[in-house]
Amino acid sequence: MILNKIEKTQVEPKITLVGAGPGDPDLLTLKGVKALQTADVVLYDALVNEALLNHAPENAIKVYVGKRSGDESFSQDLVNKLMIDYALNYGHVVRLKSGDPFVFARGFEEIDVAESYSIPTEIVPGVSSALGVPGLQKIPMVYGNLSESFWVVTGTNSQGEISPDLYVAAKSNATIVVLMGIEKIKEIATIFRTEGKDNLPVAVIENGSSKEENVVVGIVDTIEELIEEKKLSSPALLVFGNVVSLHPQFNTIKEFYAIMAQEEY
Amino acid sequence: MILNKIEKTQVEPKITLVGAGPGDPDLLTLKGVKALQTADVVLYDALVNEALLNHAPENAIKVYVGKRSGDESFSQDLVNKLMIDYALNYGHVVRLKSGDPFVFARGFEEIDVAESYSIPTEIVPGVSSALGVPGLQKIPMVYGNLSESFWVVTGTNSQGEISPDLYVAAKSNATIVVLMGIEKIKEIATIFRTEGKDNLPVAVIENGSSKEENVVVGIVDTIEELIEEKKLSSPALLVFGNVVSLHPQFNTIKEFYAIMAQEEY
Repeated sequence: MILNKIEKTQVEPKITLVGAGPGDPDLLTLKGVKALQTADVVLYDALVNEALLNHAPENAIKVYVGKRSGDESFSQDLVNKLMIDYALNYGHVVRLKSGDPFVFARGFEEIDVAESYSIPTEIVPGVSSALGVPGLQKIPMVYGNLSESFWVVTGTNSQGEISPDLYVAAKSNATIVVLMGIEKIKEIATIFRTEGKDNLPVAVIENGSSKEENVVVGIVDTIEELIEEKKLSSPALLVFGNVVSLHPQFNTIKEFYAIMAQEEY
Repeated sequence: MILNKIEKTQVEPKITLVGAGPGDPDLLTLKGVKALQTADVVLYDALVNEALLNHAPENAIKVYVGKRSGDESFSQDLVNKLMIDYALNYGHVVRLKSGDPFVFARGFEEIDVAESYSIPTEIVPGVSSALGVPGLQKIPMVYGNLSESFWVVTGTNSQGEISPDLYVAAKSNATIVVLMGIEKIKEIATIFRTEGKDNLPVAVIENGSSKEENVVVGIVDTIEELIEEKKLSSPALLVFGNVVSLHPQFNTIKEFYAIMAQEEY
């Protein structure tokens, strides 16, 4: 009983937000591995690869607090509450989040709650899916005169809607990455069409960096049909921009257009 | 002699572009470590932490091909040539690049050259400084109604100029990260002032994620003075947006403005 009491008083609460990367367990950073190795508790999201839990001590508590786009089974309030309770009672809590903790992952909300309880926090940035997933497909964010900037926008904001920022982004020359947008592809394609960008190259990458990865490449005018044909769904990201024309699959499209153009004469 | 000949024919050229992350050697991914462990040659950039070279075999050739903003001592042509020569003669070349290989790092140019020699290539995404460095300072890219998107722009494009995209970005509600822009802070601040954003919060982070990291937080109207006062210089990134108001240093500014406002009455 006395021993138990001493252990209790030795709890040093701490919360580390770790970016797990896009899915491939090898895309975790060394710093992320070190954080997991000292975890008393790991709270992990739906899109996190469970293989990463092996970096944590065997006796660490591992709790799934999965949230996929649209799934409200674990509210942010519940996740916050669990995170605080575990930190106060067990010590070091690692919040393992898909991608980077600060890219549409409510990382700051969790930091804010932790600090309101005076619990020290640390951030371990991760490879964001927004950049890393197109990168693995050899689609660069910027390239020569095809693009000098990139813009990452959410297709599903806190009101469940396409971010109004996308309407401005569609007017720009930036490479545009839309996260959580595949289910609104019809509306999103319309936004680009309104800007006269019917032929802008688009890539859709489902389950990026994992063994179940699927990619389709097309243009604004064909992308809805391609998504339906290949039955792609969430989790997936959309890349709009001329950099997508660098993808090998785009050559087929270019050849098709070349033939089409010839036939017209 | 015969042995030597056999060895020669066994060379299997391969080029892997590895993102080293923003500077802290622990921000390399496990996949990056594995690539380095099988390297015959490592070609590394100026901003890469040399501690990372310890992951490569002791007898691997390590070549500095450093380029800092504005330094033309290693032209892209020379780097390409070295990369191809080493791959053909030694086998696996790891191109170790600061941040992510596809974020203003000429990664695709190198892939393109390698493929023109039919040398197989692979990408290992890294933690981009654009996101990771503000993240370590607990500045999120998006947050509640402060920002629903983020836009990463170069302050120094291939013509040595501020990307024209920044003029559009300054009109938007996105969080804007400017890489390689600190030396043009006067012009950049003017772009935001022209949009009436004199009071928009700004953070400048020099040597992000390293022991020499320096941060200043201000607003568009004060940032030039602060940079001069604290003697910040390249490498540094700029973050423009309301999310910067979440940084603890910003509280001092808010208190200052509150006092100023009171004194006016």
